[in-house]
Amino acid sequence: MPSTIGTLLSLTTFGESHGAALGGVLDGYPAGIAIDEDFIRSEMDRRRPGSTSLGTSRSEADSVRILSGVMDGVSTGTAIGFIIENSSQRSSDYSSIQHLYRPGHADYAYDAKFGLRDYRGGGRSSGRETACRVFGGAMAKLLLRREAISVDAGVIEVGGIRAEGYGWNPPFPAPLYAPENGNLERMIDEIEQARRDGDSVGGIIECRIRGVMAGLGDPVFDKLDATLSRAIMSIGGVKGIEFGSGFESARMRGSANNDPMRIVDGRPAFLSNNAGGILGGISTGEDIVMRIAVKPTPSISKEQLTITDDGRDAAISVKGRHDPSILPRAVPVVEAMAALTIADHMLVQRAYGR
Amino acid sequence: MPSTIGTLLSLTTFGESHGAALGGVLDGYPAGIAIDEDFIRSEMDRRRPGSTSLGTSRSEADSVRILSGVMDGVSTGTAIGFIIENSSQRSSDYSSIQHLYRPGHADYAYDAKFGLRDYRGGGRSSGRETACRVFGGAMAKLLLRREAISVDAGVIEVGGIRAEGYGWNPPFPAPLYAPENGNLERMIDEIEQARRDGDSVGGIIECRIRGVMAGLGDPVFDKLDATLSRAIMSIGGVKGIEFGSGFESARMRGSANNDPMRIVDGRPAFLSNNAGGILGGISTGEDIVMRIAVKPTPSISKEQLTITDDGRDAAISVKGRHDPSILPRAVPVVEAMAALTIADHMLVQRAYGR
Amino acid sequence: MPSTIGTLLSLTTFGESHGAALGGVLDGYPAGIAIDEDFIRSEMDRRRPGSTSLGTSRSEADSVRILSGVMDGVSTGTAIGFIIENSSQRSSDYSSIQHLYRPGHADYAYDAKFGLRDYRGGGRSSGRETACRVFGGAMAKLLLRREAISVDAGVIEVGGIRAEGYGWNPPFPAPLYAPENGNLERMIDEIEQARRDGDSVGGIIECRIRGVMAGLGDPVFDKLDATLSRAIMSIGGVKGIEFGSGFESARMRGSANNDPMRIVDGRPAFLSNNAGGILGGISTGEDIVMRIAVKPTPSISKEQLTITDDGRDAAISVKGRHDPSILPRAVPVVEAMAALTIADHMLVQRAYGR
Amino acid sequence: MPSTIGTLLSLTTFGESHGAALGGVLDGYPAGIAIDEDFIRSEMDRRRPGSTSLGTSRSEADSVRILSGVMDGVSTGTAIGFIIENSSQRSSDYSSIQHLYRPGHADYAYDAKFGLRDYRGGGRSSGRETACRVFGGAMAKLLLRREAISVDAGVIEVGGIRAEGYGWNPPFPAPLYAPENGNLERMIDEIEQARRDGDSVGGIIECRIRGVMAGLGDPVFDKLDATLSRAIMSIGGVKGIEFGSGFESARMRGSANNDPMRIVDGRPAFLSNNAGGILGGISTGEDIVMRIAVKPTPSISKEQLTITDDGRDAAISVKGRHDPSILPRAVPVVEAMAALTIADHMLVQRAYGR
Repeated sequence: MPSTIGTLLSLTTFGESHGAALGGVLDGYPAGIAIDEDFIRSEMDRRRPGSTSLGTSRSEADSVRILSGVMDGVSTGTAIGFIIENSSQRSSDYSSIQHLYRPGHADYAYDAKFGLRDYRGGGRSSGRETACRVFGGAMAKLLLRREAISVDAGVIEVGGIRAEGYGWNPPFPAPLYAPENGNLERMIDEIEQARRDGDSVGGIIECRIRGVMAGLGDPVFDKLDATLSRAIMSIGGVKGIEFGSGFESARMRGSANNDPMRIVDGRPAFLSNNAGGILGGISTGEDIVMRIAVKPTPSISKEQLTITDDGRDAAISVKGRHDPSILPRAVPVVEAMAALTIADHMLVQRAYGR
Repeated sequence: MPSTIGTLLSLTTFGESHGAALGGVLDGYPAGIAIDEDFIRSEMDRRRPGSTSLGTSRSEADSVRILSGVMDGVSTGTAIGFIIENSSQRSSDYSSIQHLYRPGHADYAYDAKFGLRDYRGGGRSSGRETACRVFGGAMAKLLLRREAISVDAGVIEVGGIRAEGYGWNPPFPAPLYAPENGNLERMIDEIEQARRDGDSVGGIIECRIRGVMAGLGDPVFDKLDATLSRAIMSIGGVKGIEFGSGFESARMRGSANNDPMRIVDGRPAFLSNNAGGILGGISTGEDIVMRIAVKPTPSISKEQLTITDDGRDAAISVKGRHDPSILPRAVPVVEAMAALTIADHMLVQRAYGR
Repeated sequence: MPSTIGTLLSLTTFGESHGAALGGVLDGYPAGIAIDEDFIRSEMDRRRPGSTSLGTSRSEADSVRILSGVMDGVSTGTAIGFIIENSSQRSSDYSSIQHLYRPGHADYAYDAKFGLRDYRGGGRSSGRETACRVFGGAMAKLLLRREAISVDAGVIEVGGIRAEGYGWNPPFPAPLYAPENGNLERMIDEIEQARRDGDSVGGIIECRIRGVMAGLGDPVFDKLDATLSRAIMSIGGVKGIEFGSGFESARMRGSANNDPMRIVDGRPAFLSNNAGGILGGISTGEDIVMRIAVKPTPSISKEQLTITDDGRDAAISVKGRHDPSILPRAVPVVEAMAALTIADHMLVQRAYGR
Repeated sequence: MPSTIGTLLSLTTFGESHGAALGGVLDGYPAGIAIDEDFIRSEMDRRRPGSTSLGTSRSEADSVRILSGVMDGVSTGTAIGFIIENSSQRSSDYSSIQHLYRPGHADYAYDAKFGLRDYRGGGRSSGRETACRVFGGAMAKLLLRREAISVDAGVIEVGGIRAEGYGWNPPFPAPLYAPENGNLERMIDEIEQARRDGDSVGGIIECRIRGVMAGLGDPVFDKLDATLSRAIMSIGGVKGIEFGSGFESARMRGSANNDPMRIVDGRPAFLSNNAGGILGGISTGEDIVMRIAVKPTPSISKEQLTITDDGRDAAISVKGRHDPSILPRAVPVVEAMAALTIADHMLVQRAYGR
């Protein structure tokens, strides 16, 4: 089921950039949860194009309509269907690229897979698909906050400019959704400069999940970091993920990378968190920390070499309203996929009475 | 099903370090495939402890016994059951750490999850569990080589020492399973030095999958890189993964990171492969390239701070035969998980006649 | 995923009787299939309340709106989202039974499961949920008819009155969707009489799937009859299912029940079909024949004993527009679940190149 | 995954009649359960050929070897691997039927599916495969009896001779595993007569699950009766299943079939159980009652018409040690599949805190 993720709490999505609507089904959601629609709306707004000054000038309402599974403001325990109407379907925008493979996009691979392709805005590969994830994530966060679990992400690097001396006081403010840091201005400038250059820029997002009880995840294929990786890597534009000391751990000795333990205030504590909150695939109770590499948006107005779908060399300049960086918009999507994954593992663990 | 991975071609495993045997079930394997037992044995041997001079001096036979699904040397299309007997179960080795949480190991998290723990060699979290993966991977490779798809991995960094100027001529030789490169001696020395120090060292493995047809993977949750990430991140000790330009892409402009296309020799071609062979979650036909961060082995003889399972401060020095680096042994496991994932996607794609 | 069925071709549904809309996601549907909307509409119409004179006088439009996965009338290979708006949500009809458990309905069990209950028309347990199945089934039939596979069902028994001497010339006509037979009038009268009595009546549906290639299904848990049984038994009101000689085979000798084979016209042929087209869980190429027991509609206006949801004895007479028999409406639902199951198995089998 | 069944508690099996061993993996089994090996052995013995005077004279030890997931007699929460060695593999017995399709067996369909066939005893379609199910079922029963849930089955009809006036005092005694009843002798005679005739005979098994809490199952595709049906219908030789009044309900009025409710001793109670303990797919707390139609064993020594695998007419008389009825041996298998299904639903329901 390629459009479904999760074991007990599962999200199934549908929808293309330029179809009538996107939507999906959130199944396995517990009964009796008060559905905070204001919170859902605020989460949707964070992802919405045009929500920050760094994004496109498109304005999509992204209004979620819940169609089932909620009665009198409370979840009923049954499948929650939802749709997000596509108010502005302007297919004409895309006619110029109908037969060109946009570099860095799925276009060529898509044709190879399906034998045909919805050229309008990337079809199913559109970033617009992530709106459904953010809805699912908002619902998962409603579950998690009952357990005092929080999921937050922020941009910590843009085009090689790393956040300097940042603390962690989420939620992080627009336009960049980055923690306050010494390089924040430069990071924002980097995106603005890319836009002026008709180009785009990548960066790194950090996500921290705090308050997770020890014991989530499984020792083999359902390791918590394995399922988180699948969930996060399934976001378009993500090219890498690491946990805790991550790629840096590859340069460390075991004596430095292992996190020592002590009894602190009568409870077990780790003296460091190189593990990023996960050991052997199971949560340790420490903050789960991951960093995610996001590539520069492939849609750029600079001219690039490509081919046509009937096999001729061509050049392309992708016109239209494109983000010079998807970093700010990716932040709530990363949170959403992380929240869905943690909530699912939490339900599974509950089945075993722990 | 936390011990199962795959959609049509699925691997289910069982087994602890010190139980009677490990094993599993490979299901959904096509009928009519000649099972090359010599090849399987050679793959198992690559992972086996003691197979390289850099590993432990333990010698485990790791002889796989196929119990079903193969008749007269040919797969029958039904579930392939297999076991690997644990010839040397020496539980006594582990009594000294029975009540201590080894830093960097799953011990503490494991207790939190299950309420009890097989302290003998890590139980289900033991690296020994990967023997079953290598068997599954060898079987998957038999399928892939019929399509001229190859899966190879090699160590490209040890303790911060990066392979210098390496080519890609797999299979790579023992002891390090690294491509020939200017720093090969230094990389090996780094591991030997860690051993002499009673310490361990991490590193980076590169994996390349060549010959994959364009069109594998799916645009949403079953992106090829998402499922590969889950499969690879489920290997113990892996703390990060990246595809193509990966974390480096976060520092690039779109104009540099996008891979231009041209018609070359009458066929579509990418002029670079920053995408690592996957765009929008679907294979492009280029080499799939990923790099995997492996942490230093947590078991070290140097003394470390920890606690006991009844809540007292303690110190621990992990005795016994431990690898100063799991890098060489992880190489065939990475290949195995990659091969299983690709073969599974290939079968799914075939269902759609492509 | 309790709202999802299928392996490669999967249907996920949502929706309550009195919510805003029902709908779902059909995933894994092959690309390039012309979507015959007239056919889909005709299938939906067959299930629709009020479509036959034997049903309720409610008129629901049951107009399906496809939201994704179809472009220019052709499937794109991506998830097909759809909704069916609930035009007439009259919750007031149900206030009188809000705190009463209707005998024969899920009400009591539902409260035990979820701790709360959508009392309006049965919530998720409403027969209205089957509209989504019929849509999925219509789509599956579009796949099957390319292979000349047909799926047809008809009512062969009503309240103990068995169809007499019927042939099999589907599709069967309204109002009963039964094959032409000597007892057809009496069968219809039986339903009319039940209505006049403020009562309801059950019956038996036969379903035949013709043109299925030999080889679908699997020898163990995914036996074709096992997955068909799950699919059919998941229809509300179904209390039994049998294949081929079914319960009658329990009274037979092996020498009579085994179907002999001969070479006829140069091809293998079975001389009888007691197996109902399935042996060892795998299709034989003969017609797949199953019979399904449907209980009398539980909603009756006759007074019945029950209890209130706060634990007091009570009596209930279910008012409103209820079918005296769901048999005619169940016919297209049975076909739909059968078609989805066969199409799914067909895709899986294709993955193995057969 | 055609060799896997279950959501949280899953059983994956492997093994052919004449391979080296059968076995499997029971995953998702809770930690801390004392594994009563005597009980497991007694369950295995009930299914074993030769365990009753009505079966074959073959004696298979069916000794289960647990390879993982159990330490010091207690489950560890990790995957439980097990094997059952095939002590007596006498392939020579089957050479005479190597190229003949046995009527009533999967042989022909199997060839169509896989393109090849393990002719030795039916390969994966062998009844021997059910030994793994009985092991899984025994483990599931250990879980269920902690909740005072019992699962029992008995033969209530043989060759048309119905048990007369039986009570329900399980476990039922060998040789028939039938409840004490007025026709018990005649039922046994019927099997003996079939054997003398070189023929076989079918029958009906009733299974009752007592003590199940209300609330298991789900309103749509995971209806409790739907998943039970899949589990039971996946047993070789089963051709029909019904719940509660089942096929008889098709002949009833709603006023007779609906089960009235009253408050009895201060608790909700149903005054009858035509529903068979399940309404709308969810358990009601009443006994779950199902009846299963088992066809006559297809292997008979009487001569039958068939064809060869190269397309020639032939006659066949299946020699060897075959049960004239699989009814007694099917009893523990029915219980096993029911127990696995209920235990799985119970774990899922626990995830939701009920």
